[in-house]
Amino acid sequence: MSPTHPLPSRVSLSNVRVRYAETDAMGIVHHSRYIPWFEIGRSDWMREGGLTYDEFSRMGYYLTVVEVGARYLRPARYDDLVTVRTWLGEVKSRGLKIEYEITSASGETLVTGFTRHICITHAGKPVRLPQVLLDLLDIGE
Amino acid sequence: MSPTHPLPSRVSLSNVRVRYAETDAMGIVHHSRYIPWFEIGRSDWMREGGLTYDEFSRMGYYLTVVEVGARYLRPARYDDLVTVRTWLGEVKSRGLKIEYEITSASGETLVTGFTRHICITHAGKPVRLPQVLLDLLDIGE
Amino acid sequence: MSPTHPLPSRVSLSNVRVRYAETDAMGIVHHSRYIPWFEIGRSDWMREGGLTYDEFSRMGYYLTVVEVGARYLRPARYDDLVTVRTWLGEVKSRGLKIEYEITSASGETLVTGFTRHICITHAGKPVRLPQVLLDLLDIGE
Amino acid sequence: MSPTHPLPSRVSLSNVRVRYAETDAMGIVHHSRYIPWFEIGRSDWMREGGLTYDEFSRMGYYLTVVEVGARYLRPARYDDLVTVRTWLGEVKSRGLKIEYEITSASGETLVTGFTRHICITHAGKPVRLPQVLLDLLDIGE
Repeated sequence: MSPTHPLPSRVSLSNVRVRYAETDAMGIVHHSRYIPWFEIGRSDWMREGGLTYDEFSRMGYYLTVVEVGARYLRPARYDDLVTVRTWLGEVKSRGLKIEYEITSASGETLVTGFTRHICITHAGKPVRLPQVLLDLLDIGE
Repeated sequence: MSPTHPLPSRVSLSNVRVRYAETDAMGIVHHSRYIPWFEIGRSDWMREGGLTYDEFSRMGYYLTVVEVGARYLRPARYDDLVTVRTWLGEVKSRGLKIEYEITSASGETLVTGFTRHICITHAGKPVRLPQVLLDLLDIGE
Repeated sequence: MSPTHPLPSRVSLSNVRVRYAETDAMGIVHHSRYIPWFEIGRSDWMREGGLTYDEFSRMGYYLTVVEVGARYLRPARYDDLVTVRTWLGEVKSRGLKIEYEITSASGETLVTGFTRHICITHAGKPVRLPQVLLDLLDIGE
Repeated sequence: MSPTHPLPSRVSLSNVRVRYAETDAMGIVHHSRYIPWFEIGRSDWMREGGLTYDEFSRMGYYLTVVEVGARYLRPARYDDLVTVRTWLGEVKSRGLKIEYEITSASGETLVTGFTRHICITHAGKPVRLPQVLLDLLDIGE
């Protein structure tokens, strides 16, 4: 397997209704609260690919987060219905990058971001991405 | 051991500086955010009693929460320095009740509350309160 | 208006997919995390009644939480799809009580709870429940 | 004022005791939970500079977050006492970058990160960094 691959174009869409508990004293969603929305997108993206993160975890692996980045363009507010778009940004033998775009109901981009992950065992040992995950990524050997 | 005991009067005090992330669009601390402050109080109360919750957990137990109650009298706001008072409210052979009072820097009561706990093993099986915990509670046999 | 009223039976149902960020080191949903699910239920219950909380707030009011209670029977776990049932428990001239039941996909009760609210202006002054809210509650004068 | 400035070396230190509510089902602190710790660092860094964020906000301004980045090297766990180091990374006429390093009690780096901010009025209008903020940054005209 070469270090990088041409990427599949599969994009998953997740709808999130903004909770009051996610707002802050500025009257908008607190910037830290978008990060779990990325995670919702990631969960749905895996589920739609045929392997839930829960199943993957039961196989003895975690896709631990080693980096996160987010750019905040426009705020989301309480009760807004936003959409998280999730797709694979990059994959290497030991890690992958997932990308996200959060948009408002009217289609405006609110937040863009990414997470980088490596695969570890439950004991914390880094391992190559397991075949079940590569299958999900739809990347041939 | 009889079902209830005269209670020791040990009260622990924990200081919490309100985080911006804990506020909501009303400009005050979100009501759900006081519950982890109770947990801070509980952690400190155990630590001061001579057994950290982390140590207790490493012994194979959890003090799982079976009930929580909170009354909100006055709001806390960003950057406020509040105090959590924590004490034992009640103890039975299989559970205990911890009580809390959160006060402002000027001494006003903001929130009062309680949590009820039972002791379970990591496998989820309910057990009688272990002796190490009873020792912490300072209750003789 | 008399202090209490016969209550309408309207129950709203909200589905919540458990987020990984809502779990804790016990491997289950942290007990504080169910409180925002009550809030989701309350939001949906108001929306289905014809007045969103956001609209109500724009009229200059808040339904501030003065008490919360929750009993934890069984834990929810990551990726579970749970349902929040929400209904009006009690209404007085200056406040109301909302009740909740959270159930698993298989219909088991996980958590029950309630919140008590009073109506305040944005300046923090308590007021009688406004007519728009009473209309929502479907309670005649 | 030129677009960038030589930066002062003031570093603030904030201690954070890890809350159980901040852990996740991996048994470690959830990656989104470090972002509010950056905010704690930022609050303390401003306070030590002589202007609390609360005071700054009362003057009619917000330092809104336009970007966040974090790299996760080692996990923090429940009850760990970690330190957040905070310093000014960069300042321009309309924005600034704050940098963070979170270390364990034994001095190991757990997480590094940054936030980028612009200054806006409470009405949401971007403005040049006010003089009170430049004074805090200890940057001469």
